[in-house]
Amino acid sequence: MSTKIILDCDPGHDDAVAMLLAAGSPEIELLGITTVGGNHTIDKVTHNAQVVATIAGIDATIYPGATRPLVRAVEVAEDIHGDTGMEIHNFELPEPTKQVSDTHAVDFIIDTIMNNEPGTVALVPTGPLTNIALAVRKEPRIAERVKEVVLMGGGYHEGNWTAVAEFNIKIDPEAAHIVFNEKWPLTMVGLDLTHQALATPEVEAKIAVLGTHTADFVVALFAAFRKNYQDAQGFENPPVHDPCAVAYLIDNSVFTTRKAPLDVELTGALTTGMTVADFRSPAPADCTTQVAVKLDFDKFWNLVINAVERIG
Amino acid sequence: MSTKIILDCDPGHDDAVAMLLAAGSPEIELLGITTVGGNHTIDKVTHNAQVVATIAGIDATIYPGATRPLVRAVEVAEDIHGDTGMEIHNFELPEPTKQVSDTHAVDFIIDTIMNNEPGTVALVPTGPLTNIALAVRKEPRIAERVKEVVLMGGGYHEGNWTAVAEFNIKIDPEAAHIVFNEKWPLTMVGLDLTHQALATPEVEAKIAVLGTHTADFVVALFAAFRKNYQDAQGFENPPVHDPCAVAYLIDNSVFTTRKAPLDVELTGALTTGMTVADFRSPAPADCTTQVAVKLDFDKFWNLVINAVERIG
Amino acid sequence: MSTKIILDCDPGHDDAVAMLLAAGSPEIELLGITTVGGNHTIDKVTHNAQVVATIAGIDATIYPGATRPLVRAVEVAEDIHGDTGMEIHNFELPEPTKQVSDTHAVDFIIDTIMNNEPGTVALVPTGPLTNIALAVRKEPRIAERVKEVVLMGGGYHEGNWTAVAEFNIKIDPEAAHIVFNEKWPLTMVGLDLTHQALATPEVEAKIAVLGTHTADFVVALFAAFRKNYQDAQGFENPPVHDPCAVAYLIDNSVFTTRKAPLDVELTGALTTGMTVADFRSPAPADCTTQVAVKLDFDKFWNLVINAVERIG
Amino acid sequence: MSTKIILDCDPGHDDAVAMLLAAGSPEIELLGITTVGGNHTIDKVTHNAQVVATIAGIDATIYPGATRPLVRAVEVAEDIHGDTGMEIHNFELPEPTKQVSDTHAVDFIIDTIMNNEPGTVALVPTGPLTNIALAVRKEPRIAERVKEVVLMGGGYHEGNWTAVAEFNIKIDPEAAHIVFNEKWPLTMVGLDLTHQALATPEVEAKIAVLGTHTADFVVALFAAFRKNYQDAQGFENPPVHDPCAVAYLIDNSVFTTRKAPLDVELTGALTTGMTVADFRSPAPADCTTQVAVKLDFDKFWNLVINAVERIG
Repeated sequence: MSTKIILDCDPGHDDAVAMLLAAGSPEIELLGITTVGGNHTIDKVTHNAQVVATIAGIDATIYPGATRPLVRAVEVAEDIHGDTGMEIHNFELPEPTKQVSDTHAVDFIIDTIMNNEPGTVALVPTGPLTNIALAVRKEPRIAERVKEVVLMGGGYHEGNWTAVAEFNIKIDPEAAHIVFNEKWPLTMVGLDLTHQALATPEVEAKIAVLGTHTADFVVALFAAFRKNYQDAQGFENPPVHDPCAVAYLIDNSVFTTRKAPLDVELTGALTTGMTVADFRSPAPADCTTQVAVKLDFDKFWNLVINAVERIG
Repeated sequence: MSTKIILDCDPGHDDAVAMLLAAGSPEIELLGITTVGGNHTIDKVTHNAQVVATIAGIDATIYPGATRPLVRAVEVAEDIHGDTGMEIHNFELPEPTKQVSDTHAVDFIIDTIMNNEPGTVALVPTGPLTNIALAVRKEPRIAERVKEVVLMGGGYHEGNWTAVAEFNIKIDPEAAHIVFNEKWPLTMVGLDLTHQALATPEVEAKIAVLGTHTADFVVALFAAFRKNYQDAQGFENPPVHDPCAVAYLIDNSVFTTRKAPLDVELTGALTTGMTVADFRSPAPADCTTQVAVKLDFDKFWNLVINAVERIG
Repeated sequence: MSTKIILDCDPGHDDAVAMLLAAGSPEIELLGITTVGGNHTIDKVTHNAQVVATIAGIDATIYPGATRPLVRAVEVAEDIHGDTGMEIHNFELPEPTKQVSDTHAVDFIIDTIMNNEPGTVALVPTGPLTNIALAVRKEPRIAERVKEVVLMGGGYHEGNWTAVAEFNIKIDPEAAHIVFNEKWPLTMVGLDLTHQALATPEVEAKIAVLGTHTADFVVALFAAFRKNYQDAQGFENPPVHDPCAVAYLIDNSVFTTRKAPLDVELTGALTTGMTVADFRSPAPADCTTQVAVKLDFDKFWNLVINAVERIG
Repeated sequence: MSTKIILDCDPGHDDAVAMLLAAGSPEIELLGITTVGGNHTIDKVTHNAQVVATIAGIDATIYPGATRPLVRAVEVAEDIHGDTGMEIHNFELPEPTKQVSDTHAVDFIIDTIMNNEPGTVALVPTGPLTNIALAVRKEPRIAERVKEVVLMGGGYHEGNWTAVAEFNIKIDPEAAHIVFNEKWPLTMVGLDLTHQALATPEVEAKIAVLGTHTADFVVALFAAFRKNYQDAQGFENPPVHDPCAVAYLIDNSVFTTRKAPLDVELTGALTTGMTVADFRSPAPADCTTQVAVKLDFDKFWNLVINAVERIG
């Protein structure tokens, strides 16, 4: 039986791969794609989602969402994603033929969760958590009705946007605070995990050999991402964060997890946006949060490669 | 020509008076009443709004809204409003015959502003600003389309919930931060003003003499409010905060105002929820915020008394 | 009987006037002058203290103190005090003949309080509170042994360095937090008071007519201070803050005071360095802090004029 | 040639071992022992230092220092160190014959550093950093004159007093902020390192076999410490933190280090007192701070055992 998910994203090179992984995996029923201002403005990331859907023939409807963080000023990640939010080279991005819905992402999330059986819909946010926060504050009952939240963001021992904070959490920490403190099962797929999901030349070669248009697109995404990560953060191979969250919903043995109380720092001069995990003692019995710890590298990339191959 | 308003409230004794003032004043077209968790839980304040509408025969539809603050834990003001949120004595509150809408307050606010002519609808929040914040984050275009926001909350030199913070702002400071930083015209009717709007025995006598059922209700509200304010905050006569914001939209000469940059403190150990006004220099030309300074006591209470009389 | 004080200052135009007021008033026994980095660097303000002592023939020894705030980076007030920290025109400042002590200000403060009878020495800080904080942390017993602390700084409803914070407190808020939370009697002479102590042309004329060298110096201080305050803060006449604190120890009827709990905000994004007074209820019986409220303008300036005249 | 150190401590079971290691190692010239309120009050930890010196015949003079943190309220670690601050069983602690100096710890630190050749004296704080912070604020020149600061405290990925903060830093974070931001060479020996320095039964047996009075004392310290750590933090064997800092000055190959910018969080709701290390890029060339990473367990314990043996 497949898992129903809503992918809430801000493409973004790695969000694009997450979309492909979700769309190309039979274990996933992609109910809809919601977008959120993050890696770039809402207009650009929504456009990028349309482009990816057009390239890969993704059926799921796209619902544009929040244009900006709850409290903080808009901040984008041009050093990582370029000035289009998904800048690539040696691959011509099509004009999107895919249209977007008039329904707001927040309402799509609420309606979908309320209209499906309880415990059947998972939320998979791979951008700032603004949409999810707005949804649960507008309709609190989704918290107990959702299956789980598996999000890419944060890090218990790693940061990228500051020494101890990751971009998705840092740019809308209040939204993250809301999401991390609701009582739904929550898996944080943070930098500790995603920095293991490197697009090595070997991985890239396995995708290139597929020879499809979508494969060419992924290869171009990796190439651009590699360059940006080398320049901005000194990585040799780029960490492809967002599909890790999707992968867990396809096969939860793709990484090991550890239960721990989690919270988000809102007021630190040095630490705002940090996801604080308390590992001092075994997690209490009622702890509903866990962190991703160790990636099965081969299993993960095989999921991605197979999905790309299926899309054709 | 009357002014179209949405009254966003959490009745609350003084919210009840604000409802009566809006409903009983021909200068006001009350488009709807939205409720928000604040003085008490959303269920209780919505019930109280229904009760007030039932007593006074108010036509406007009631739209329930946010159940809790954006980020902070729920906190209510039982010391001021009792355990029902509008506890009174010597007056029997009816079971409400007035029903509430299925439409969420946030959507009613957005739809009303987007479907009316630009610059025609004023928002009048007299509780925590959660609904308004959610609305403008879900649909940012309302910020330039609304006529103005006239809110009861805050204080530039006064506090009640802490030394320097007022209840409505203090319990959802992130929502207040959002509302105070949007570019709509905003009038803060804070404690500096509302602590002048005292329900003295003379005022109470003028209402009592009207002899109507609604007048009896108001007298009972004042009596309970007086007792609570004497016990909790040492006031001889209770400050009737919320109708001050409505009064300004009936007759803006009811108080003087002063332009000043305003913001809301989110991180202070002693000052979180403080509305910070900068009076050091004349406000810059593009300043869209002002504070209420000096109440015309007689003019204000005449507006209230006349409205109660009109309701009958 | 005269009152023994230690003047802890950072001259500074108005600190200079405070020195003159202390030195020229028989009601004051000036045990020593300690300096602290504030209006300008420790080297400049110490030099300025030597200059003032040289001009006015002040006997009291000068003890240099802290070079920088406890935690925050050094910040000076050049817009108000010029690049020398006491920039004036039309008056030639002498090379100081007055030397400074090798004893650190902190040790002088501790030793003086510990070696005098309990309850006989008052501390009069008119700059950042770094020296006082260091002293009470090095020797906690001075807290119960000092007579009182009468400080220029802060404001309960006024700010100058930010909307709600005053310079002396803002640049070393941790030191202020320490001083405001010790159990000594403390009088805050803040901007609420000192913005009433304006050097009007009439005041200046009364000093000018004295015709002494010191009077000429004061007139030059006022002229420079007036210009700087007009340019930087839009004052017509400059507020001469620091002598207000000294004046209170000469004649405590020079202003009215109000008891209130006081504390210093350390973590506010908008309010760090604010002195938070709680006026909501009568101060508790064990409250040891009070604020200066209303200046007797004529009485104050007569104290200053008489002191300048006495110095000759 | 031996290294001159000042040991600034708050005994404390592990501080006691640090004193023994310093006193019993010919590579160390122990110039003095300063005490600071931390594990328990200044009176108790100073008494404990006297007791340890009495047991082991330590010559170095003891200088009592700060009684409380700079800004925060006093907090002690009774769950780890008992109500005497060094509670042990099955070993009779003597009445101390060792006296303490009248010179304040802060002055001893300043005078010692200023009177020795530049670059020859190392500071080894194993408690809160209050004394060191007061010293460098009173006499800033010690920052460039000290050889280095090797401190036990903090943790880059571990916390004990909160999820991400260690006791010594957490209880006086402002002092730590001061010390971590001075330009002296600083080695942070944090929990990441000291949680490797476990007093296993094997270690304890090697000490027990020495058969001396001091060895008996150490065995009793370990036994009590083991019990407290089992109960309070779930450790099987207790981490003996403080001697690790001393050990590094005896033989800096006892652990590996990594250069990284370090700072201390002062304002986080969840993270105050956290030592924030930035590992995102190679440390800049002018970085003067490093963290201890990997302990050579055998080498460390051999240093301790040999020192205990030498003391006899």
